[in-house]
Amino acid sequence: MASCTICLPALMILVLDLNTVESVWPLPQKLAISEERYPLSPTHFNFYYGEDQASIMRDCSLLDSAFTRYFPLIFPDLTSGNGVLPSTEEKAFSLVVTMHQKDCDGYPNEGSSERYQLNVSAGQAVLNSDTVWGALRGLETFSQLVQQDEDGTYFINKTEIEDFPSFQYRGILLDTSRHFLPLKAILNTLDAMAYSKFNVFHWHIVDDPSFPYQSRTFPDLSSKGAYHPMSHIYTQSDVRRVLTHARLRGIRVIPEFDSPGHTQSWGKGQPNLLTPCYKGSSPSGTFGPINPASALSYTFMSQFLKEVTSVFPDPYFHLGGDEVNFSCWQSNPDVRAFMQKMGFGKDYTKLESFYMENIVNITSNLNKTSIVWQDVFDYHERHSFLKVVEVWRRGCYLCELRKVTKAGLQAILASPWYLDQPVPTRNWARYYKVWPLAFKGTEEQKKLVIGGEVSMWGEYVDATNLSPRLWPRACAAAERLWSDESQTRSAEAAFPRLQAFRCSLLRRGVRAEPLSPGHCRNEYRGI
Amino acid sequence: MASCTICLPALMILVLDLNTVESVWPLPQKLAISEERYPLSPTHFNFYYGEDQASIMRDCSLLDSAFTRYFPLIFPDLTSGNGVLPSTEEKAFSLVVTMHQKDCDGYPNEGSSERYQLNVSAGQAVLNSDTVWGALRGLETFSQLVQQDEDGTYFINKTEIEDFPSFQYRGILLDTSRHFLPLKAILNTLDAMAYSKFNVFHWHIVDDPSFPYQSRTFPDLSSKGAYHPMSHIYTQSDVRRVLTHARLRGIRVIPEFDSPGHTQSWGKGQPNLLTPCYKGSSPSGTFGPINPASALSYTFMSQFLKEVTSVFPDPYFHLGGDEVNFSCWQSNPDVRAFMQKMGFGKDYTKLESFYMENIVNITSNLNKTSIVWQDVFDYHERHSFLKVVEVWRRGCYLCELRKVTKAGLQAILASPWYLDQPVPTRNWARYYKVWPLAFKGTEEQKKLVIGGEVSMWGEYVDATNLSPRLWPRACAAAERLWSDESQTRSAEAAFPRLQAFRCSLLRRGVRAEPLSPGHCRNEYRGI
Repeated sequence: MASCTICLPALMILVLDLNTVESVWPLPQKLAISEERYPLSPTHFNFYYGEDQASIMRDCSLLDSAFTRYFPLIFPDLTSGNGVLPSTEEKAFSLVVTMHQKDCDGYPNEGSSERYQLNVSAGQAVLNSDTVWGALRGLETFSQLVQQDEDGTYFINKTEIEDFPSFQYRGILLDTSRHFLPLKAILNTLDAMAYSKFNVFHWHIVDDPSFPYQSRTFPDLSSKGAYHPMSHIYTQSDVRRVLTHARLRGIRVIPEFDSPGHTQSWGKGQPNLLTPCYKGSSPSGTFGPINPASALSYTFMSQFLKEVTSVFPDPYFHLGGDEVNFSCWQSNPDVRAFMQKMGFGKDYTKLESFYMENIVNITSNLNKTSIVWQDVFDYHERHSFLKVVEVWRRGCYLCELRKVTKAGLQAILASPWYLDQPVPTRNWARYYKVWPLAFKGTEEQKKLVIGGEVSMWGEYVDATNLSPRLWPRACAAAERLWSDESQTRSAEAAFPRLQAFRCSLLRRGVRAEPLSPGHCRNEYRGI
Repeated sequence: MASCTICLPALMILVLDLNTVESVWPLPQKLAISEERYPLSPTHFNFYYGEDQASIMRDCSLLDSAFTRYFPLIFPDLTSGNGVLPSTEEKAFSLVVTMHQKDCDGYPNEGSSERYQLNVSAGQAVLNSDTVWGALRGLETFSQLVQQDEDGTYFINKTEIEDFPSFQYRGILLDTSRHFLPLKAILNTLDAMAYSKFNVFHWHIVDDPSFPYQSRTFPDLSSKGAYHPMSHIYTQSDVRRVLTHARLRGIRVIPEFDSPGHTQSWGKGQPNLLTPCYKGSSPSGTFGPINPASALSYTFMSQFLKEVTSVFPDPYFHLGGDEVNFSCWQSNPDVRAFMQKMGFGKDYTKLESFYMENIVNITSNLNKTSIVWQDVFDYHERHSFLKVVEVWRRGCYLCELRKVTKAGLQAILASPWYLDQPVPTRNWARYYKVWPLAFKGTEEQKKLVIGGEVSMWGEYVDATNLSPRLWPRACAAAERLWSDESQTRSAEAAFPRLQAFRCSLLRRGVRAEPLSPGHCRNEYRGI
């Protein structure tokens, strides 16, 4: 640097090219940026619908609100860049959006195309997509292409982009049971997810410590099972706000109601649901997983799942099924009797399998595709009733992906992306090296790996530290799941791009922690 | 809990006693809280100066501003507790403050007494202290004693407290070079420090990556050495704001201008200060530590130290002296010649010693007591010129404390409290187990251990993650340095108190991260 203080202009061009070339995260599948640059001015900028598509596009409220949302993201500093340019350059610039399906009123799902094309030339950018979801992705990319020079003047380079995700499922899990996350923390996370093109919010909404979901059918679950019956719950309208906020950003919301384990908080509002644990011949006063030997359990789960599957529109639904502790079941005489009756012998995995199969069938009859944690797959000989398995355990997760897909089941990879663990920020490079398809298997098997997920468990995470623990490390997973693997193998090459992207996250108000010593032109100010 | 829903009253008393007994952090040296409880109302509460001291106390602006600051901390929810109480209970309550020295206009220093007595009885609390600094500590304690019941009614228990710190020096280091910390982040940290009774802000203000301090004498240091000459600097008025904010909270500000190493950023604005490194017989273009062989270095340092020692009023001044890399010095012919001339042979620690001794002497002549990192002590036979040594290296830091104090030097312990490292939050228990006097040595030696310090280095820390990484873990160190060791040995016993204190930090707007699954009545809302 010091040696270059005399060669500022050269340096500046370098820097700007750097900014330009490196400003899109995750990296588009095909990206061609030329040196040619066009000025932009917030006062001479417009969004348009493609002429030919005008009829289709009319009243696409989803895209309209996206335009409103992205204008300040494209021009973060509305005072700069105004009148700075010589008036001769004050040309109008328009972003013309054309899409081929009218799906503005629906929710995104596993089949939604996110493909888009973006061509930036003099005075206009043309964004083409099959669906509104693709248009949203293209809009995000466009917002990242717009740069500001040292004078604050906005500009964009001549660019050609052909883009689509490598994986259909790119999720982030938030745990709102171990700590309650205020609605605003969830909405802010959805905003940041859209910037990295994440498209699934896996809402691990309840667990042992608390039950914040306010059920219409069983209000006692939250009034007795939440940390606080008023201040620490998600009302139906809270859930609707999350669903709407996510939908407007092309993000699916997949709720998880984990059972039969991880249900201590359920028992507070729903007597006779959990298994009474025994000490010798009498109840110990403590409770275990949901009682799989009682018909009441299935009656309750049917009614409860009927409600929640109707509240959450996504076709996928997460049923959990992880870490079931058998000791309480083993202690309970009714459960033991049931085991005998069913001929399960001493194999309690058969009992868990029996429970899960019932729950999965209930869910299927409610027209939902079930996701379960890998435990359900690992412990059961019969897999026919399963559809999607989430791989979360340490060790050889690639081996597990091979097994799951060999069994003809869809797989989601979570194991390498447990970001709730406090580790050096530079570990982002490890997350970046993960490739979910790096196992020996047929093309059919690879196709069954539908994507991956970043998990932010809540033991030590709440609104105070959620954002810096999630961002920018989650961006590494986002790029692995979206971009062309062959172009994004090197963490070293990605580093300056991630640095630049982290700076734009700060500017957008995301509390993304630093990756190394250094600075951003616009530091985080929301202190 | 569930089993106790029928015994709410009993439970409530339990909980409230818990709150009350466990609400003071760090634990006072002598604390007696009785069951007897008095209601408080923000509309019937007053601060008074002790009658007899009225003359002394008149126009103690420092205490006046403390009263203004603490009123909303004592009554965080001004809408609650009002009129909730039966009018019969609407008794006035006053906090009467008496101190025996008039020192309202000065700065705290190493000799400032922080001792105070606090007696809470019906209708009034009496706070006695030698100095205004002790009054501030007592005020903090009083604010923590005031509780709110389920109805939001404020109350305080009959209490007798006799309190003083175990260690005179209880510091937190912030690094504003590796990442720039906006002024507000520093001021917020000072606020939170006062809540835990920390009393030293060790400002590691400059280092290799950037030089944000705007010098009056050498403006180029920041205009060329800062990340940005305008947006990433601390002006003289910024520094004054920090000094004032700290003083009002009884916090000393000890700046560190680390040399001869860690000075890369100095070189940008001050040519001929750093040692030109050589490759063979010609300069390589890179630079090493400050050039100890050049008279210019000492001239510059004299002028620069003259300025900064006048800007920062504290009698102590940190000169750094850590991690000096000798390879560049060894490569430089002038330095080698100087070594020969001085008869240092090949022992470059002698050269570093020569430099440090000069710098320490310059600082002494400016009437400041120098603090240096342990390296300066470790590498030099002669210690006579040293006064205070900060122990930071891993390994047997107690051995180092023994050596340093055996040499008759004051010691500050930093090693076990490097909180910039991302580790599980539960590690607070390790920080809590540290006892700086747990080495074999005489009473005189123990007296020389003046305290300890929490370090928050900036490689991976900036305004986005500073608070949750610092709080509540730093509170563990705060209690070790303030409270009676024999009463605060058990991390298990401290845990519920720390949980409760973390909740009050959240309510006061400090982004303190969670210690375990659970919740606070008032979660962090500043999202």
